Amino acid sequence: MSFSWPCYSAALLQNPATRLNNATHFVSKGKFRVKKRKQVYQECSSFPQQTVKVTRSSSNPNTVLRLFAFLKHTKHPLRSLFALSVVAYVVTVRIIPRFKDMFVKANLCGIDMSKSRKEKIPEALGVVTGCVFLITLFIFIPVPFSQSILKNADFPHDEFVELISALLSICCMLLLGFADDVLDLRWRHKLLLPTIASLPLLMVYYVNFNSTTIIVPKPLRPWFGLSISLGILYYVYMGMLAVFCTNAINILAGVNGLEVGQSVIIAASIILFNIIELGGDLWKAHQFSLYFMLPYLATSVALLQHNWYPSRVFVGDTFCYFSGMTFAVVGILGHFSKTMLLFFLPQVINFVYSVPQLFHLVPCPRHRLP
Amino acid sequence: MSFSWPCYSAALLQNPATRLNNATHFVSKGKFRVKKRKQVYQECSSFPQQTVKVTRSSSNPNTVLRLFAFLKHTKHPLRSLFALSVVAYVVTVRIIPRFKDMFVKANLCGIDMSKSRKEKIPEALGVVTGCVFLITLFIFIPVPFSQSILKNADFPHDEFVELISALLSICCMLLLGFADDVLDLRWRHKLLLPTIASLPLLMVYYVNFNSTTIIVPKPLRPWFGLSISLGILYYVYMGMLAVFCTNAINILAGVNGLEVGQSVIIAASIILFNIIELGGDLWKAHQFSLYFMLPYLATSVALLQHNWYPSRVFVGDTFCYFSGMTFAVVGILGHFSKTMLLFFLPQVINFVYSVPQLFHLVPCPRHRLP
Repeated sequence: MSFSWPCYSAALLQNPATRLNNATHFVSKGKFRVKKRKQVYQECSSFPQQTVKVTRSSSNPNTVLRLFAFLKHTKHPLRSLFALSVVAYVVTVRIIPRFKDMFVKANLCGIDMSKSRKEKIPEALGVVTGCVFLITLFIFIPVPFSQSILKNADFPHDEFVELISALLSICCMLLLGFADDVLDLRWRHKLLLPTIASLPLLMVYYVNFNSTTIIVPKPLRPWFGLSISLGILYYVYMGMLAVFCTNAINILAGVNGLEVGQSVIIAASIILFNIIELGGDLWKAHQFSLYFMLPYLATSVALLQHNWYPSRVFVGDTFCYFSGMTFAVVGILGHFSKTMLLFFLPQVINFVYSVPQLFHLVPCPRHRLP
Repeated sequence: MSFSWPCYSAALLQNPATRLNNATHFVSKGKFRVKKRKQVYQECSSFPQQTVKVTRSSSNPNTVLRLFAFLKHTKHPLRSLFALSVVAYVVTVRIIPRFKDMFVKANLCGIDMSKSRKEKIPEALGVVTGCVFLITLFIFIPVPFSQSILKNADFPHDEFVELISALLSICCMLLLGFADDVLDLRWRHKLLLPTIASLPLLMVYYVNFNSTTIIVPKPLRPWFGLSISLGILYYVYMGMLAVFCTNAINILAGVNGLEVGQSVIIAASIILFNIIELGGDLWKAHQFSLYFMLPYLATSVALLQHNWYPSRVFVGDTFCYFSGMTFAVVGILGHFSKTMLLFFLPQVINFVYSVPQLFHLVPCPRHRLP
């Protein structure tokens, strides 16, 4: 995975002083603020390139010990979040059947084309899981900041704004997805609106991090050097990531449980990755990602139970858009937007395979069933 | 209006040192950060109560001069916003007719009960104005912070988070309103969800201001003193304000153009109030309010053109919820949540008049037409 690892984690590993500095922060204050991060970037960019050897930040033997110390820490926000996610799961499993009639009555329903029984199945139930997800996170918002609030310390506005802007982008996407299910939006809206919905996110990235340096893959290094700063192109990439994630999940539809199933697998993989990285230097970013992934997984598993063969509900574009944006958000603000594409490998392959149909070189039916 | 004026504006006027301090800020730096504001609150609370005389902060003769100086300031964010709002108006006027068929096809339509011609009229077009409003503000977000970004100065995260959290609450409400139009939600959802949608807003208020002191109306002062700190009750009030504003506009429906008409009048009044107060000491809060009110007025006037008698589109619950939350947001974060109720006076009277029907003491039809 070394080819795509960000520059600053390489720098952190190679400079013992920086590493010690961060470790101290981890133990004593539990804080890792913007200015510190910016310092790290600057140190990184001033490194002589030939001395940098790219390795994974979690490969240090102390990492496991630190991970245990991290998880043992009492009153940790992730504990509250875990409890909240369990509640969210139970609530979602129970309320989905209650909303079914409401959706059918509103003509939000489809007929399962792969079944012999042609009964109406409610569609767009993703909006229910999306709302439960948002409510869970709204209730959770004060928890990570409770220490700052109780101790009347300097409030970490920069971390707070990351959380809020991520929720804003997800909420926008949920609205767009639901509007698409109800109104059948045109393709140009589906490409334009996710880009606009990710604007606040990119603004936060610019203000809080603005690191656009990437490590060049090994085969290309003779031409481009070890790392290049992509500048504005990196922002274009992140904006496109939101569009890609939302549509990549949507395109794999038509088989019972496939949309939610793939999302659950991706979410579970990301959670595993985040938990491993919690012991690393970038633990804060991975903890941020977990804030979103835990309730997302809980609500999605609940939806999967109802969407599994034979489906009693369909998830609709709402769920695909909501999921895609959630993944894009944690990828961008969790600083693993390039690693994120590895979790999307099957979707990337499907996208490449579908390109001739997407660009109308080959005729494409609305649902690509055999 | 003196009865409801917040404590800190009284303090600002009475303490020449504080006032001068703020005026200097206004001229030299154009900044008025959280710590300064907190200082002001503390100074306010340490005032001997008998010396405080409550007057309006804009009553100072210098106010008009300062207002002119403010508006003359080149490259002011409000200029860009005004231009953006004009564009938003033109776009909204043009796209509403294009979306009409889409809404009718999705069975989002109603029949005008006061007309003899029983044709289908598309409903819930408020979602279109809401989306244009959000897109306008997403594009506008970087503008007020361009100076901090270009000069590489300390970024005002506290102001940024106010903007983002306000957008989050509005976006949530737009989603809820649209879901209500499509699914016909139950009453308990209509009361619960706005409260939850305003949680991030209250969190931001707590973190950035946390002033819960109100000036007691004159007739009650012998019993309660000049001012009392409401504490948690003030947050309950603000949470209820969001619920009240959303439902107060919704309840006045049934006559062509009434929902949008009243909202346009309220928005225009707030804009006038904000512009007058721009020359006062709390100019920053009123400028914040204008960021939302200008594009809101532009998109609403465009909608009113299509909703005016004879209506070619209906606005739906979507518009009412979206409007109510927008007003609540500017009231809360613009620090005139109590003055806001004065702009809602007709709605308050209607609410009191409707109480017997709302609590089912008198039977209530769904649409209260004669």
